[in-house]
Amino acid sequence: MAVTARQVQLVAHPEGEVRPSHFRIVEVTLPELAEGEVLVRNLFTSVDPALRLQLRRSGPEGYFNSFRLNAPMDGIMSVGEVIESRDRRFAPGDAVSHGWGWRDFAVVPAGVVSVGGVGTLAKIDTSLGPPEMFLGPLGNMGLTAYVGLVVGAELRDGDIVWVSAAAGAVGSIAAQIAKLMGHRVIGSAGSADKVRYLIDELGLDAAFDYHDGSIVDHLREAAPDGIDVYFDSVGGDHLQAALATLRRWGRVAMCGAISEYESTEPQPGPTNLFQAVANNLTLRGFRASSHLDRLGESSHVLGDWLAQGRLRYQQTIIDGLEHAPEALGRMLAGDTVGKTLVRVDTPGA
Amino acid sequence: MAVTARQVQLVAHPEGEVRPSHFRIVEVTLPELAEGEVLVRNLFTSVDPALRLQLRRSGPEGYFNSFRLNAPMDGIMSVGEVIESRDRRFAPGDAVSHGWGWRDFAVVPAGVVSVGGVGTLAKIDTSLGPPEMFLGPLGNMGLTAYVGLVVGAELRDGDIVWVSAAAGAVGSIAAQIAKLMGHRVIGSAGSADKVRYLIDELGLDAAFDYHDGSIVDHLREAAPDGIDVYFDSVGGDHLQAALATLRRWGRVAMCGAISEYESTEPQPGPTNLFQAVANNLTLRGFRASSHLDRLGESSHVLGDWLAQGRLRYQQTIIDGLEHAPEALGRMLAGDTVGKTLVRVDTPGA
Repeated sequence: MAVTARQVQLVAHPEGEVRPSHFRIVEVTLPELAEGEVLVRNLFTSVDPALRLQLRRSGPEGYFNSFRLNAPMDGIMSVGEVIESRDRRFAPGDAVSHGWGWRDFAVVPAGVVSVGGVGTLAKIDTSLGPPEMFLGPLGNMGLTAYVGLVVGAELRDGDIVWVSAAAGAVGSIAAQIAKLMGHRVIGSAGSADKVRYLIDELGLDAAFDYHDGSIVDHLREAAPDGIDVYFDSVGGDHLQAALATLRRWGRVAMCGAISEYESTEPQPGPTNLFQAVANNLTLRGFRASSHLDRLGESSHVLGDWLAQGRLRYQQTIIDGLEHAPEALGRMLAGDTVGKTLVRVDTPGA
Repeated sequence: MAVTARQVQLVAHPEGEVRPSHFRIVEVTLPELAEGEVLVRNLFTSVDPALRLQLRRSGPEGYFNSFRLNAPMDGIMSVGEVIESRDRRFAPGDAVSHGWGWRDFAVVPAGVVSVGGVGTLAKIDTSLGPPEMFLGPLGNMGLTAYVGLVVGAELRDGDIVWVSAAAGAVGSIAAQIAKLMGHRVIGSAGSADKVRYLIDELGLDAAFDYHDGSIVDHLREAAPDGIDVYFDSVGGDHLQAALATLRRWGRVAMCGAISEYESTEPQPGPTNLFQAVANNLTLRGFRASSHLDRLGESSHVLGDWLAQGRLRYQQTIIDGLEHAPEALGRMLAGDTVGKTLVRVDTPGA
């Protein structure tokens, strides 16, 4: 069966703002499956902050590779359905997740870790939730929030927790996990609407718009005696503010630094890193892909909370593969709420 | 008994280089002891890098307080002998350590933590070593090296360890502890003489002068596959180099940032802090004074190694209380080896 597939490809490394003109849509005829390969029709493909790093000519050393120009974008999570399989572990009709995204049909080598290490082809248990949830709370996003708190921050009883980008995909899950575990939780986000969402919908104890005055002042107001944990997806001035307000034995779970992803020059780190010495602080970086052994645990914990209606989950779905670059731009501009993903329109779906 | 004591007092907050003119020596008549107070004749008083922070008009928040002008300098470790006691736990002749330094005779309130939290008045067990050793490997210095590795860096079998300022008081102990625990150890220091000392005397596996080319290149040469632990007393370009060369799951024990202590402006942090996310790194700040519960353990472990001749220990002793400011300046300029301390000359000693 000769399959014609559409792929988004990068044609130029953006410097600064990401625009659709940095990409093209190409049609390719997929080769016949080789032994061990599986043909997947993608239903949803992910739009992650970390993609911005892969769009750079050279990424941070040791992290995800940069995308190659004029080539399919490997290393982006997608979910879909197996159409044809030459691997005995997969059969047509299986719901699966994998790392060969931003295309409608993908030829996926079973058992092989994708570029960037985001995952191998894996069946997903759709009794826990619909497929797109596996790009969200039931997948690596949920795992990021979960291991960030449990492993990265070593969350302890009584901790006061600040989550930045708390209306975002990972942040909204992290903030709710901390609430569900009984903590006082402060959230920050980039608009008044998002702040209302954090208070009214997610039930956080305090929330603020980081554009609105001093971050440190907001934190001091919400936690006069200081915070214990900062879940960091932002870096920059947010990390600086955390170091100024963390009390003794505080912890930072470092999950990313979206404030720096669009800069062309390396950004200086916080000027108050010495606070780590002064207050016995721990800063721990982590990647969900290094904790895939806990994915089962995290998807079950979060799946139960979702089923009980205790975990809220928002997503911004953009329709049509050709709008993936635009979706990425909107997410980086803070113009989406919750998890951003693209619904892939495939012929015959 | 009316005792006349000499004290070093700060008269101006230095900006940049520390000079003797920032200090004065004053003679004061000590008051009669109140109940619970002890009169100590100091034998040695400590010269620590962290003093530089206390000389600033305002120090890093949450860390040691700044010294007050024209007042005795509380919060500096000293060792001495009890002359008179109005506390039942101490008697004349007892060898003690305490935090009321940079003076010849001190009135010390027993059971009270000094400014800066460096310690209370405590008897020292001189069977483990001479009193001045309790300002070094048998005291907070040794504790800093010990807990930095064991708690801060969570040292594990097989770790390759880089210690900066490895010819310094804390660094030389940390480097040797790591060697004695069976690790491959790289040391860095600020002169060719010190580098020779690290190799020839301390037996480190590799050593380099950080003035001499790129720190990253030196580390890559000494550990082509990367390092696992960095014991940081320097900050700045050293921490940046560590982040560039630490391999996955690496750890930084943050003990201080001497490269920044003389700067009048806050110094930007490393531009590559994102490596913590990329490589699952942990950066942990610590203060020995927060781990005083392990002082007994550390002084016994290090005391045994000293007694067995397996732990080398260098000190630079400057004679005369009036030379304490000069001693501090020399230490900050990298012009001393090992622990720097001042031998206090007292009438009748």
